[in-house]
Amino acid sequence: MKFQPQCPAPTTADDRILMAHGGGGKMTQRLIEQVFLPSFSNPALDALHDGALLELGGSRLAFTTDSYVVNPLIFPGGTIGDLAVYGTANDLAMCGARPLYLSAGFILEEGLPMETLRQIVSSMQQAALCARVTIATGDTKVVDKGKGDGVFINTAGIGLVECPSQIGPAAVQPGDAIIVSGCLGAHGLAILSVREGLEFESPIVSDAAPLWPAIEALLAAGVEIHCLRDLTRGGLASALNEIASARGVLVRIEEASIPVMDVVRSGCEILGLDPLYVANEGAFVLFLSERQAAHALEVLKEVSVSSGAVRIGVVEEGVRGSVVLRTRIGGNRVVDMLSGEQLPRIC
Amino acid sequence: MKFQPQCPAPTTADDRILMAHGGGGKMTQRLIEQVFLPSFSNPALDALHDGALLELGGSRLAFTTDSYVVNPLIFPGGTIGDLAVYGTANDLAMCGARPLYLSAGFILEEGLPMETLRQIVSSMQQAALCARVTIATGDTKVVDKGKGDGVFINTAGIGLVECPSQIGPAAVQPGDAIIVSGCLGAHGLAILSVREGLEFESPIVSDAAPLWPAIEALLAAGVEIHCLRDLTRGGLASALNEIASARGVLVRIEEASIPVMDVVRSGCEILGLDPLYVANEGAFVLFLSERQAAHALEVLKEVSVSSGAVRIGVVEEGVRGSVVLRTRIGGNRVVDMLSGEQLPRIC
Repeated sequence: MKFQPQCPAPTTADDRILMAHGGGGKMTQRLIEQVFLPSFSNPALDALHDGALLELGGSRLAFTTDSYVVNPLIFPGGTIGDLAVYGTANDLAMCGARPLYLSAGFILEEGLPMETLRQIVSSMQQAALCARVTIATGDTKVVDKGKGDGVFINTAGIGLVECPSQIGPAAVQPGDAIIVSGCLGAHGLAILSVREGLEFESPIVSDAAPLWPAIEALLAAGVEIHCLRDLTRGGLASALNEIASARGVLVRIEEASIPVMDVVRSGCEILGLDPLYVANEGAFVLFLSERQAAHALEVLKEVSVSSGAVRIGVVEEGVRGSVVLRTRIGGNRVVDMLSGEQLPRIC
Repeated sequence: MKFQPQCPAPTTADDRILMAHGGGGKMTQRLIEQVFLPSFSNPALDALHDGALLELGGSRLAFTTDSYVVNPLIFPGGTIGDLAVYGTANDLAMCGARPLYLSAGFILEEGLPMETLRQIVSSMQQAALCARVTIATGDTKVVDKGKGDGVFINTAGIGLVECPSQIGPAAVQPGDAIIVSGCLGAHGLAILSVREGLEFESPIVSDAAPLWPAIEALLAAGVEIHCLRDLTRGGLASALNEIASARGVLVRIEEASIPVMDVVRSGCEILGLDPLYVANEGAFVLFLSERQAAHALEVLKEVSVSSGAVRIGVVEEGVRGSVVLRTRIGGNRVVDMLSGEQLPRIC
């Protein structure tokens, strides 16, 4: 049994905010549980879903928010603006909701070149067209030089829930099949290659893309979705752990079936990263009943963003939620939540 | 005729982001017109209202967003968390919408004392109870030390429009009465007194408070609201200029009737500020037909947040939108938009 090498969780965790509190792993969970939930506790928030489900005037709406602090602001395959649109639209899609409206809040650092802002704003508009969402309302603040980092963007999103059944960890059943929508790790590696000045034979570009077309196709085909999660901060490993732990089941996945492009795999090896933990911006994991798995795969392969969909595992009974990977050489490895920080400011 | 002393608008405005781009005055307007609108243009956004009005599944919703970067994080009468709740709830109220749900996106700087975060989160929950909104969804990101400033918070909000008529500058008519809901300038002075280490005989506390109860009372009393604006960044002067300019009318106000507490007036004199431009977080301006003005004042005086409501002026015909103040000594002074930055990071 092999463990993912990780920095130990710092012991001063309770005194001050650390980078790892933003990593999407154990420290983020602890921050939410110890600081945010005790104050904000309410049924919508306690679900700890990618978004809140609201009944409003007879409509079922999804509502979600994300702040984007990615560094660098512009990277192969996208900008912070693309992420701000796709990321929030995708969180709505993961609630089974058609993304409709986004808000955009900009925090600009004094001295930011106007041309950089124009490029980001223009890429947001392209992304909004592509994701078929309207940026309906916005806000701009400016902070002193040295009190920000170029641009931070928050987008909140409203979507109309089109999935007839409740999507979430609670709907996951032992026996369910687990599908991922495509290759993993490209977004994280694209960011890191710029930060570290790495050059690969074929350039790695972010997979940032809207996911709703894949979900829409599944719903149109009558697939009953049990659970969905996009594979952003913390990657596949964190998403599976969250779901396994929330539902109290054992998630068993096959290393050989997890799709990772060769160039990403090599990049991860050079950098000492495990692609299971690397962030994606155009990939999701789907839980559904075994009898619909083959049909769902056919449907997903017809949609461009999920054309690389494959089955990677199965849900089993398990008292404590855990994720076990069957390695290529036949061993079993527990895939834990990250306790430290792997790739800060990846989205 | 006396002009408000202002720094000249910098000439390099088009190359880089300056603090004044966040001030809510001419530079902010120019940034929106030159960078954001050309890309994002759509009917909801082009209205340049405090929020977007959306028809969704048969309901009329208001949707708005604001990022909060106030410095210091904790000040007399509130915290950045209070502002993040009241400010966004108030933007919904200004659309004639009952505030219902907020999202909360935190950008934390590495090293932030956990106790500060707890205090802010706790004040947000108190404010949410007070404003009767639910914080339904959230997100946390962490940036490296020196790339943020403690905490930035974005809140987006969803409200249900309860006002039967269209609220906005387009509904303003020559002859309309103009009412402000209470004393001006306390929020800006409270922030500045901490920043500058000033002590006043009686401490000045922020007026941060939810405004919906006042709007709800007006609607219940059958008052037909023409236009509403909360008096945040840029104060009363900027709000009146925006409305006058959008509608192409002359707004005439009486200096003697504008309510400012003595301690705030003295503070402004010491600091060389004009209370007309100072930010408020619990005050609004209301435009309505002359024949309903006396009734509206009675209604507002019964609600605690608007108990200091007074009539300050009248709308007249005017080809180019402008705001003219009749001074105490009987002169007329043009009240222009700020072209520079008066109080950075006030909200």
